Amino acid sequence: MQSTMQDVPLTVQGIMRHGVATYGDSVCVTRRPDGYRQASFAEVAERADRLAGALAALGVGPDDRVGTFMWNTQEHLEAYLAVPSMGAVLHTVNIRLFPEQLAFVINHAEDRVLLVDASVAPLLARVRDRLTTVERIVVVDRPAGESVEGLGETIDYEELLASQRPGFAWPELDERQAASMCYTSGTTGDPKGVVYSHRSMWLHAFSGMTANTTGMGQNDRVLVVVPMFHVNAWGAPYTAFLAGADLVMPERFLQAAPLAEIFATQRPTLSLGVPTIWNDLLRYAEEHPVDLSSVRLLVGGGSAVPRSLMAAYQERFGVTLLQGWGMTETSPVCAVSWPPRGVPAEEELTWRAKTGRVVAGVEVRVVAEDGTVLPNDGRSVGEFEVRGPWITGAYYKDPSSDRFHDGWLRTGDVGTLDEHNVMVISDRTKDVIKSGGEWISSVDLENQVMAHPAVFEAAVVGVPDPKWGERPLVCYVPAPGHQVDPAEVLAFLQDRVVRWWLPERWAAVPEVPKTSVGKFDKKVLRAKALAGELTIVDVPLPERAETAGR
Amino acid sequence: MQSTMQDVPLTVQGIMRHGVATYGDSVCVTRRPDGYRQASFAEVAERADRLAGALAALGVGPDDRVGTFMWNTQEHLEAYLAVPSMGAVLHTVNIRLFPEQLAFVINHAEDRVLLVDASVAPLLARVRDRLTTVERIVVVDRPAGESVEGLGETIDYEELLASQRPGFAWPELDERQAASMCYTSGTTGDPKGVVYSHRSMWLHAFSGMTANTTGMGQNDRVLVVVPMFHVNAWGAPYTAFLAGADLVMPERFLQAAPLAEIFATQRPTLSLGVPTIWNDLLRYAEEHPVDLSSVRLLVGGGSAVPRSLMAAYQERFGVTLLQGWGMTETSPVCAVSWPPRGVPAEEELTWRAKTGRVVAGVEVRVVAEDGTVLPNDGRSVGEFEVRGPWITGAYYKDPSSDRFHDGWLRTGDVGTLDEHNVMVISDRTKDVIKSGGEWISSVDLENQVMAHPAVFEAAVVGVPDPKWGERPLVCYVPAPGHQVDPAEVLAFLQDRVVRWWLPERWAAVPEVPKTSVGKFDKKVLRAKALAGELTIVDVPLPERAETAGR
Repeated sequence: MQSTMQDVPLTVQGIMRHGVATYGDSVCVTRRPDGYRQASFAEVAERADRLAGALAALGVGPDDRVGTFMWNTQEHLEAYLAVPSMGAVLHTVNIRLFPEQLAFVINHAEDRVLLVDASVAPLLARVRDRLTTVERIVVVDRPAGESVEGLGETIDYEELLASQRPGFAWPELDERQAASMCYTSGTTGDPKGVVYSHRSMWLHAFSGMTANTTGMGQNDRVLVVVPMFHVNAWGAPYTAFLAGADLVMPERFLQAAPLAEIFATQRPTLSLGVPTIWNDLLRYAEEHPVDLSSVRLLVGGGSAVPRSLMAAYQERFGVTLLQGWGMTETSPVCAVSWPPRGVPAEEELTWRAKTGRVVAGVEVRVVAEDGTVLPNDGRSVGEFEVRGPWITGAYYKDPSSDRFHDGWLRTGDVGTLDEHNVMVISDRTKDVIKSGGEWISSVDLENQVMAHPAVFEAAVVGVPDPKWGERPLVCYVPAPGHQVDPAEVLAFLQDRVVRWWLPERWAAVPEVPKTSVGKFDKKVLRAKALAGELTIVDVPLPERAETAGR
Repeated sequence: MQSTMQDVPLTVQGIMRHGVATYGDSVCVTRRPDGYRQASFAEVAERADRLAGALAALGVGPDDRVGTFMWNTQEHLEAYLAVPSMGAVLHTVNIRLFPEQLAFVINHAEDRVLLVDASVAPLLARVRDRLTTVERIVVVDRPAGESVEGLGETIDYEELLASQRPGFAWPELDERQAASMCYTSGTTGDPKGVVYSHRSMWLHAFSGMTANTTGMGQNDRVLVVVPMFHVNAWGAPYTAFLAGADLVMPERFLQAAPLAEIFATQRPTLSLGVPTIWNDLLRYAEEHPVDLSSVRLLVGGGSAVPRSLMAAYQERFGVTLLQGWGMTETSPVCAVSWPPRGVPAEEELTWRAKTGRVVAGVEVRVVAEDGTVLPNDGRSVGEFEVRGPWITGAYYKDPSSDRFHDGWLRTGDVGTLDEHNVMVISDRTKDVIKSGGEWISSVDLENQVMAHPAVFEAAVVGVPDPKWGERPLVCYVPAPGHQVDPAEVLAFLQDRVVRWWLPERWAAVPEVPKTSVGKFDKKVLRAKALAGELTIVDVPLPERAETAGR
């Protein structure tokens, strides 16, 4: 039986129309080298309208990809609104990609036009010759009368907008058509493309307004530190437009000092960023004034937010630092670490330090290696699989992926789910160590090793073992001015991990190799270990510890 | 270009699954004659599972309509979850319908099974003989061992559930298929059916969690005074299940005294109901203790919430009483009267007393009689038209309706929309008075008349006038112990309305006729006036007032 409901698609156009009609006087503030620039949502939308007209005049048609290579700015917001709304596809390119990856993603997405911030244009210039599909490059903030070295002929963004009058004829869109795309920063193989739909972007943006996530509303002022090239800036730009929340864009000024100044002068109520940012700001606050009195909520994500960091923000500033979890493949927000209600105050941090509670609209399950769905008991360990209207079901032009299982996305993360639908991630599937039939969490183990004061950094990887299948190898970097005695660290670990986790293999390394987004690149370490390029020391385990594998 | 997103439908099943997986220990509390009964969301869902099995065993298949004739209770919530999730269609029947309407809607919807509260079974018994499609009647709270007079053979709800084990095989659903239906309480002609989809119910429920509406979250406890047979109880049951908010169900105990007790003992944070309820509670508070200290927000809707009532709640209890606007045709929530931010404190009530600000997901426009879309300038008066994924685009089995215009629903309400997307309704299109080419708001005029202390109630209708086309006729009921002198009221009005609105025709009536939902039934008054059944007195207008029509 059919309903009688109207068939109105969920689109980025709808987000733009609602923001303008309802919150036309909310503002987007962008940090500039010489201060701040402010524009109302009405002005932003008017410029987005002209941008759409201008792109169409450049030949951008339905489904054509328009790449952005930009910081968080008003112009990037204009592209977020204009490109999907005109029926084209916004491809946000990570400015921190290595050159090979950069060329790969632009060519793979077949971007026809790129919008580029002048300040990062040199990064693009390095690969310009390798870009096979890019026809036009539009430069934002191009120094007057100057060309941009290495990019060939470019178009000035403001001149482009000036060439148009508003009144673009926005096409009718299907909510399932592509709105935007983003590539994973996978540590293995080429980056993989995820293509978001209008529907997924709308629903994900809506989710950000709900009380159990960030509850963004018209009284908020949102400092978006997480880059807009980093998985849709976690949905914040669209959510803010739907909710009427002011947006504060830090552009390239992401160091602690300018961020402190932005907090003090722009007085955001809500801010989102990776833990490194919050860590830097905290350290900065040790010697400088930092005013977070306007803030009601900070959100960290992209990597696990340490409990100690949350505790420090609570103590130092009285500010709640929450963590969210998601991936490029999941738009990204799947879980937010609000504790279940009724949790005693002294346990709150314990809950906030867990990966997060699954948000409405997303389903998560834990699956054993044989495909069995495990119970939500907080104990059964398996791979997380995710399902929902803003979760990808495939990779772009990559039909052969094994990351999809029965309609669910295999996340590659391993952990538990409890009776409150709270996820705790303990490892990546590819990093987990299988010893005597049991899983050892490389992340837990390296965190315990790093808790030793003599250790600066440590990564734990699995290496083949004739008896147990695999055993952990600790690759450690001593803290400045310290020597590391593996036997002593091993003794330190004895009360901190179960006995059969205790690692007998140790290798000093000058640094832990990292990916383009700063994550430990364990595949490099595994390869070096296998190739005999690490000096591995066998350390005798303490007594009774040989019952590894239980 | 297709996106790579998963194709996961938005369904009531999804609402149920999320509530159970995440907030299984949130509760539904139902007021009973002898106290309160409480069940966790996990228990409610387990019973919904058995209800689905039992209904299937009774022969309920895909698309079959299951009617409910029930108060707000845990069992009604179970039906809300089970019936749509099993692929059948929930038809919530208004227990306050007149018998003819009652028989009409059940027959028109072709309900096969009815779930009926024993306490209202006699109302159904009056029309049992006229119900042509109902095969089974299931009675909730049936007195043990007794039959229910006039309903023939009935089934006991608890016995029915006891006959099943959980584990119903929920079918895969299309989000656009029918989930539930509700009939309008139109004052003209037969009630009209609106069929909600799974998609519309999901999106509408999601909307209730957003900060700019009620922001319902896991820390809320929601007293649902608005009946679940009254347009989905404004979405509250589904929103609460998605958000993990406790539900408090008042059953038949809707009078001020039991409501006060529920507020005091159950300590809700949020409650929704028609203005009459809030008015009754306020009066009750004059002589009895009323404790609203747990409440963060009250919402009124169904008819305009008087500013004086909002002011009284603010002063007496320090509680925000907000109004929402919507219709059966709109699921219902389209607008909520949060003032734009930055409004000075002393103007806040003025803004809250406006009809409301359009919520994300809904589009509203004002249209002139010739179909022209008017500007959002707060001045241009026209009919409101509404569009969105939870707005109906048709009536059930009624293809000929003239209420749809170019993909938009014509609301039949007249008013203005301002630059903040704030609606102000001044009248119903059919009640508006057209005098000398200009519109006179019957609602504004009667509100001004009712502001006179000698007037208890007044309804204003248009009557034919040879010179001006139409002129207003005031039908008034004197306040107890008062006499009404129309000339004196007219003098009272002189500074309160523009001159050409001043009404020269007056008729005393014993009472203002009302519809089944308590609205002024002006078509009855118009008919009486035309039939000469009212004693109409012509009162000379004050000087210079004859320039009616400007």
